[in-house]
Amino acid sequence: MSTTEAPPSTGTNGNGTSGYRWVGTRPVRHDGLDKVAGKARYAADLNLPGMLYGHILRSPHPHARIVSIDTSAAEAMPGVKAVVTGADFPEAPPKGATRNLMCTVIARDKVLYSGHAVAAVAASTRREAKAAAEAIEVTYELLPHVLNISDAMADDAPVLHDKLFTRGVEPRPTEPSNIAARTVYERGDVEQGFAEADIVIEREFSTQAVHQGYIEPHACVVDCDQEGKAVIWASSQGHFKVRSATAEVLGWDTSRIKVIPAEIGGGFGGKTTIYIEPVAALLSTKAGRPVKIVMSREDVFRATGPAPGAIIKMKVGARNDGTITTAKAWLAYENGAFQGMAAMLGCMCVVSAYTLDHLYVEGFDVVLNRPVNVAYRAPSAPAAAFAMDSVVDEIAERVGMDPLDLRIQNCPSQGDPTPYGPKWPMIGLRECLEAIRDSDHYQSELPEGQGRGVASGFWFNIGEASSATVNLNENGTATVITGSPDIGGSRASMALMAAEELGLDVHLIQPVVGDTEVVGFTDVTEGSRATFATGMAVVEACRDLKEQLRKRAAKTWDCDMEEVEWVDGSAVHGPGEQEPLTLAAITGNAKRTGGPLGATASLNARGAGPAFSVQVADVSVDQETGRVTVERYTTAQDAGTAIHPSYVEGQMQGGVVQGIGWALNEEYIYSDDGNLENPGFLDYRIPVASDLPMIETCIVEVPNPSHPYGVRGVGEVGIVPPLPVMANAIADATGVRISDLPLSPPRVLAALTAADS
Amino acid sequence: MSTTEAPPSTGTNGNGTSGYRWVGTRPVRHDGLDKVAGKARYAADLNLPGMLYGHILRSPHPHARIVSIDTSAAEAMPGVKAVVTGADFPEAPPKGATRNLMCTVIARDKVLYSGHAVAAVAASTRREAKAAAEAIEVTYELLPHVLNISDAMADDAPVLHDKLFTRGVEPRPTEPSNIAARTVYERGDVEQGFAEADIVIEREFSTQAVHQGYIEPHACVVDCDQEGKAVIWASSQGHFKVRSATAEVLGWDTSRIKVIPAEIGGGFGGKTTIYIEPVAALLSTKAGRPVKIVMSREDVFRATGPAPGAIIKMKVGARNDGTITTAKAWLAYENGAFQGMAAMLGCMCVVSAYTLDHLYVEGFDVVLNRPVNVAYRAPSAPAAAFAMDSVVDEIAERVGMDPLDLRIQNCPSQGDPTPYGPKWPMIGLRECLEAIRDSDHYQSELPEGQGRGVASGFWFNIGEASSATVNLNENGTATVITGSPDIGGSRASMALMAAEELGLDVHLIQPVVGDTEVVGFTDVTEGSRATFATGMAVVEACRDLKEQLRKRAAKTWDCDMEEVEWVDGSAVHGPGEQEPLTLAAITGNAKRTGGPLGATASLNARGAGPAFSVQVADVSVDQETGRVTVERYTTAQDAGTAIHPSYVEGQMQGGVVQGIGWALNEEYIYSDDGNLENPGFLDYRIPVASDLPMIETCIVEVPNPSHPYGVRGVGEVGIVPPLPVMANAIADATGVRISDLPLSPPRVLAALTAADS
Repeated sequence: MSTTEAPPSTGTNGNGTSGYRWVGTRPVRHDGLDKVAGKARYAADLNLPGMLYGHILRSPHPHARIVSIDTSAAEAMPGVKAVVTGADFPEAPPKGATRNLMCTVIARDKVLYSGHAVAAVAASTRREAKAAAEAIEVTYELLPHVLNISDAMADDAPVLHDKLFTRGVEPRPTEPSNIAARTVYERGDVEQGFAEADIVIEREFSTQAVHQGYIEPHACVVDCDQEGKAVIWASSQGHFKVRSATAEVLGWDTSRIKVIPAEIGGGFGGKTTIYIEPVAALLSTKAGRPVKIVMSREDVFRATGPAPGAIIKMKVGARNDGTITTAKAWLAYENGAFQGMAAMLGCMCVVSAYTLDHLYVEGFDVVLNRPVNVAYRAPSAPAAAFAMDSVVDEIAERVGMDPLDLRIQNCPSQGDPTPYGPKWPMIGLRECLEAIRDSDHYQSELPEGQGRGVASGFWFNIGEASSATVNLNENGTATVITGSPDIGGSRASMALMAAEELGLDVHLIQPVVGDTEVVGFTDVTEGSRATFATGMAVVEACRDLKEQLRKRAAKTWDCDMEEVEWVDGSAVHGPGEQEPLTLAAITGNAKRTGGPLGATASLNARGAGPAFSVQVADVSVDQETGRVTVERYTTAQDAGTAIHPSYVEGQMQGGVVQGIGWALNEEYIYSDDGNLENPGFLDYRIPVASDLPMIETCIVEVPNPSHPYGVRGVGEVGIVPPLPVMANAIADATGVRISDLPLSPPRVLAALTAADS
Repeated sequence: MSTTEAPPSTGTNGNGTSGYRWVGTRPVRHDGLDKVAGKARYAADLNLPGMLYGHILRSPHPHARIVSIDTSAAEAMPGVKAVVTGADFPEAPPKGATRNLMCTVIARDKVLYSGHAVAAVAASTRREAKAAAEAIEVTYELLPHVLNISDAMADDAPVLHDKLFTRGVEPRPTEPSNIAARTVYERGDVEQGFAEADIVIEREFSTQAVHQGYIEPHACVVDCDQEGKAVIWASSQGHFKVRSATAEVLGWDTSRIKVIPAEIGGGFGGKTTIYIEPVAALLSTKAGRPVKIVMSREDVFRATGPAPGAIIKMKVGARNDGTITTAKAWLAYENGAFQGMAAMLGCMCVVSAYTLDHLYVEGFDVVLNRPVNVAYRAPSAPAAAFAMDSVVDEIAERVGMDPLDLRIQNCPSQGDPTPYGPKWPMIGLRECLEAIRDSDHYQSELPEGQGRGVASGFWFNIGEASSATVNLNENGTATVITGSPDIGGSRASMALMAAEELGLDVHLIQPVVGDTEVVGFTDVTEGSRATFATGMAVVEACRDLKEQLRKRAAKTWDCDMEEVEWVDGSAVHGPGEQEPLTLAAITGNAKRTGGPLGATASLNARGAGPAFSVQVADVSVDQETGRVTVERYTTAQDAGTAIHPSYVEGQMQGGVVQGIGWALNEEYIYSDDGNLENPGFLDYRIPVASDLPMIETCIVEVPNPSHPYGVRGVGEVGIVPPLPVMANAIADATGVRISDLPLSPPRVLAALTAADS
């Protein structure tokens, strides 16, 4: 156990001071050396004998009918072993989620965005596959396209899906529309609320679609055998999801597919779905050879992700004493080419960090000719927080209150109603607000010429199904097998919880990510659920093992099991007539007491603890260029309990950095003909280390009572506050409030110029 | 479920007539298509990026002191990345099993057989590795050697180990000796027994060392990381054993090693130990690259296996009514270069197929300058049966009884004492004898000019530790994970037992061989234990799952669990108020009833059922060349219960064929300087399909009461009877009884010639 240059932590806890022996400590992660030494195997690293390379042909048009596809020239090209088009896949149902998934993987009658997969080739070399794919002749009938929310919602907009009728509107429309769904949450009477308010602020905000920006492009190797079975090596956030989704697209039974998880080079929500696996599977079946597909960065930008852009109109009322009484919100979220639920999530989140007597939140999910949007850390919450926390900041300014004090005054506590229905369980928003208020950063004087902004953010976190198997080895070590890919250090977290339960040194525990055949069903890693839910399964399996260990000791001692306690990794004889038996002594003797020891637990985790984060930033703004420099940044986040504080801090920092990128730089730039003009990291610039100061972290620990160690989950909420934090800090620095993202140099400069004139 | 040209089965059962739905049926094995299509991956098939090839330098001398090893020239050779010698390995203790294992893997101060590993090289290509290994300069001081039992037991024999003092002799000798151990089993008073006998026959027998003859040579790929961890891909009969043995040789903790089981191309006992894995691990550690080692066939012959040769003196007394009263046996078994327990096993088996009032069995384990002997199907039993059942045949002839009737008259039953101590449990020897007596083969008239021989054989079978994890998938299929490599169809057996327990179609069950990290500790596959012991673990896990399934149904129905029965793959509501819930319905709804379903079971299996086989052969002997042709062969074997009759028959046939090879052809031919002269399948000829008739099988099923389905284990005993069967049939055909194996053309011709003159 060691901390090598751990990032600064000023948490109320998160430093092993919780009374636990292992939980809260910072051992080097079990997969650390492999990863820094370049030995970790990602999906693209695998090569199989006889393997072919797949290349996917993508549409150059944002909206077009596919008239015909002629693959004959491609099939005659050198090295080509298989060609597939949409016609090789099972027919998609006329509407619904399955159709959306199937048509995302490969287009059928229509292409719906530039980059939409149309056909694919497997050939002996990458070059041959690409050349043959380019030789496929697709005849398109171009259709008018829509690229933004306003155009897509217009009455005369070109409609993407002729079977899509707006849900959530009574009576249900009979004309197809690009508005996939309308969502409403309401409480009290907003008009009465506004009447009672001393201040009413009404603003409109816009945010841009951004990509999750994982460094590793999507990659897989698929090997189908003559029996119709497929082995898939893939980088994903959930290999059981890869299995079920691939089966769904191919119309196969899931039992035909085995998915082996490769290491994953970043996902952030973007690898909770599939794009290439069914294509590689069909190519492999046709060719009788393994097929590898690795996306180019350009393909990743044109055809995967993004997180949606949004337009949000906020109207908020407050009294002069700082009490926020009322909010009315109108949210419209891009869904990409197929229906999602971005607006619904945005509606649930937009005012969740505040108690309100009156609210009316209305959201619209809108389809348009862009790639279908995919989860990205706390999906939809950042845009919603950008709107609400910008307005809240204005209110604080207007009533002359400290923005943190105002938020503390209005923050919900356990038992208060959430905007979306149930009551809040135990939550740590107030503690996060107080942690930032009391932080060295917030207590320090703002340097001359800089601006300071604060904001808060909410995310649900979820539970779902997880499994774990824990086997004790003959030498007293343990293997912990779970079905959750290790995205952010979960191997270490699982090992720490097992160490705590069993009383075993964490280095004697080998955490393993098992494939779909060796571990029980486990849902995709999303909703910050892995350490929470899969951790619960690990704990449950370890507790089963402790019962077994006590039984073995009782058998060895020929005493009643009730006389045996498990203390610090040893069986202890209550009456004290026997020397304690260590775990290694019991496993070493296991053959004589009934065989090896192992246990499996599977559960559907309930009681995920809601997550809150509160953040503060100091920025300076170059008046000549509009460039914003982040001078100092501190984030407080309620982790529940930080199992491995270093990786909690890493998640907090990563979320903040991605949020800063979203706030300051990132956006998709489309040409008029609907093609993405910046599909690469040179022109789509995500923040790099040299752009930012060290992000200071403050782990707040308000334990989640539904988890044996109080875990909430930490992966997502960190990305929510940076959007309003940046806007608020820039407003503080410049006196100019900007409500359209990104706050890039041209936009900031334009706003400064406009304010000057 | 189908039987495509199943071999003939005339068993009392073994045809699914047992009342079971799945047990006893013959589905195509789950790994069948991969194996016939060449897609199954053996260890040698794996290639990793940056992988090096290892080559082991072996001693050309049978006994020599290593004076010095100079690796400098080798290290300077092109492509060489690492060189290791015995000095790179941890020091071996002065004596004992660990020393023997360590010094088998690589020689330290002395080489003890031609082919003994001395040093190894890892290089970029196979050619470079071999060239560099040959450039290693080893200076030997030659020592006198011994190659056969008589020479090794002589008073003035060169002694192999200066710390080896004969065990089992009182007082324990203080002079080292090649006699490693003496074993005695006795009952009654043999001298009194001989005095009471009407007939006493005394003969001396010899058998030759033979190789297990697996088609796949030993192969492994080892990849060590900078943290000191190793991943080993290996073909073996037990990857947990590969892990523990490699750790023992390297002085590592087992938790540093993960072993991934490759498919195995034959083992027959010979792959229950390791040779190359620690060498590859040290080379990989030194080079920082993965290292593959694949043995040549010559290396396999010179340095692995064999089953021991033996000298056995039998003196047996019987009454004129056919009652065998007395046996005295003296057995000496080759142990190879290091001590084993061949003679002890031979002593336990030699008269086990007979009830005897008086017996005295004395055995000697002898070390000599040959590779250390390794298990081969029912180790030591074939030579012992050769001696006893040859003599019994003479007794039958002398008293004028049918040789099967004589055996039936003298066969032990439940409750009789075994020669080695405990009483016999329920056994099926009598049923096997009767099955052969009543068989079409034995009832058919012997064709003119042929001879007919019968014999019986015994083997213990064992239990040991096994683990299984069974996971139910969301679509109602099941995955069965065990730690037993699939050597002879165990995937299918495990799936059948799980199908029977769960009431699920066997094709909905995916049997998986898990690596050392994903399944609980499981002992090596030996002693015919896999289907018995690992099967018990599968059944136990399935029964746990059935409890869970009933609980879920009770939750769904909101009723008491006691009201739910599990019938034919569905939960059935006892009071009949609910429609039955299929397994798929429960797993499909599992998220709402508590999460995924899985169970693990680990046990140390007790109550392995002893195995017996009785066989009959008709042979013709070419009087001019001495060549023996097997004209017809039938084997009966007590399987307990045949889980998958086709693979039971396969094991029975395989054992017989190997026994025929041992009897008729196979032997090691050493030159005077101690080098093996026939290290290849051209000069060491194992039987091939064209040499033999179809082996007819008769599965006898006397269920083992200690196993939930009555399994005994079928892998080994089939090899025991062929040695005496062949000798007895040749004696019947020619009137000449030969007591030295192999019964090869030169030896048979010499015996015929001697008898003529």
